[in-house]
Amino acid sequence: MSPPGVARRSCLRVAADRSEANEDDVAVEEPLEIRIHGDPVATTMRTPGEDRLLALGFLFSEGILRSRDDVSSVAHCGHPGEEGYGNVIEVTPSPGARIELEKVSASRRGTLTTSACGVCGRRSVEDLVAACGTVGFDALRVPAARIAQAPESLRKAQTNFARTGGVHAAAALSLEGELLAAFEDVGRHNAVDKVVGALLLGNRVGTPFSSPPVEDARRAVLLMVSGRASFEIIQKAAVARIPLVASVSAASSLAVDLARRTGVTLATFVRDGHFNLFSHPERIDP
Amino acid sequence: MSPPGVARRSCLRVAADRSEANEDDVAVEEPLEIRIHGDPVATTMRTPGEDRLLALGFLFSEGILRSRDDVSSVAHCGHPGEEGYGNVIEVTPSPGARIELEKVSASRRGTLTTSACGVCGRRSVEDLVAACGTVGFDALRVPAARIAQAPESLRKAQTNFARTGGVHAAAALSLEGELLAAFEDVGRHNAVDKVVGALLLGNRVGTPFSSPPVEDARRAVLLMVSGRASFEIIQKAAVARIPLVASVSAASSLAVDLARRTGVTLATFVRDGHFNLFSHPERIDP
Repeated sequence: MSPPGVARRSCLRVAADRSEANEDDVAVEEPLEIRIHGDPVATTMRTPGEDRLLALGFLFSEGILRSRDDVSSVAHCGHPGEEGYGNVIEVTPSPGARIELEKVSASRRGTLTTSACGVCGRRSVEDLVAACGTVGFDALRVPAARIAQAPESLRKAQTNFARTGGVHAAAALSLEGELLAAFEDVGRHNAVDKVVGALLLGNRVGTPFSSPPVEDARRAVLLMVSGRASFEIIQKAAVARIPLVASVSAASSLAVDLARRTGVTLATFVRDGHFNLFSHPERIDP
Repeated sequence: MSPPGVARRSCLRVAADRSEANEDDVAVEEPLEIRIHGDPVATTMRTPGEDRLLALGFLFSEGILRSRDDVSSVAHCGHPGEEGYGNVIEVTPSPGARIELEKVSASRRGTLTTSACGVCGRRSVEDLVAACGTVGFDALRVPAARIAQAPESLRKAQTNFARTGGVHAAAALSLEGELLAAFEDVGRHNAVDKVVGALLLGNRVGTPFSSPPVEDARRAVLLMVSGRASFEIIQKAAVARIPLVASVSAASSLAVDLARRTGVTLATFVRDGHFNLFSHPERIDP
């Protein structure tokens, strides 16, 4: 039994000379929609738990609530057992509280506040899969060493991290391990967007309409990221038809679930020649 | 001369027995507004550079662009030298390209896509300062050891990090170093929101209208975060009138600039009894 905020997922622990079935704890990542008077104000990707505090702290930080006296009640919508219960929370202001709904309209209505990006009303893995499509390339086989070596390619591209310790990096590699594009950014998803943008301009990604063969030396086959793999990293890889994603850090529950459904091979904690495979391990040759 | 994406800021390097003036490189964090046909589609906090690739990669990942043939041009709005030049980018679709503006309207218009959260059209430090206010407590003095010990308090509260390696944590401490609230979350800003929400319910933050004295044992004086200090962490501390923010990791340029203007003392890389002070060092007693 996992503690709150933690989910268990099966994985394959891969080392240079062997691999074994394992189970690993991942942080739970799910959307929370915050409503005032029934109107959605923001959606954030969060670890469930203490949602009332999250909603209050967020609205206070944004200047929408000005003190705890502005709030009459905070409660999840719906009923326990209903689908999606727990992921929508309703904040009821006190009678007479001056909630600046105009401020909400102007700046925050429809706003997406995420630890990631891109969930925008797509509440479930199914909705995300429908939006992303699936990657294909079921016959692709990649040596484990290609993944184990990817962090080194990424590190070479991380010029600003050494100076600031404060930027994320992402890189795209070909089937042969050639570095096709790499960028740094304060935002993890921005670094990936820059990589995908470069691949798009260079015809190095697949699309639902055209997919260069993976053997093409210019084709992106592996997306390597410096930070945690949250769901939006998988989303971006799936849309660009990049079949492999590797992270030097952890994955969230939603990233694992989305990778399994979109056909993305997800490797985490790629360090010192080891890594954990959470999805589609059939693509990896020992 | 700093390389692109990196800015230099003065700081005080503090150790147990001495402190010295220093300069440190920080990652640049600035908003980029992405427009199609002049309509804002998204705003993201990013490190400037390769903005065209960022815009293309983002719109492609969201399914708004379906191939590079959908794009006629991508260019920054305005003219070099104008205020804010470089932070708004216009994507012009190809004639006949089927840009699903309806999709944009439904899910993304007014959307905030950030490495942080909360910028929502407030384009400059000045706008943020106006929204946050300033912290006050100019006479507050805190021993350096209080900051040096804060990571240990945070670590004790990080139960899920040990299991998953994939969650952020935030904690609030009193002037005497008592732990007032601590939470973990996949989202850095969510962990802080939960802390602020708990403080708000317990009357442990100040507001523009009432501020318990900092000597109050229940009053939050220090916000300690596990991840990088981006601008929204400073925003949340400033609004809650928490005068000190400490991070075990780096700060962004906007975090440093906002901390200076809102009266927040910002300490980064708090490790092994050392830290870097980027703003309001007068509050820290050796």
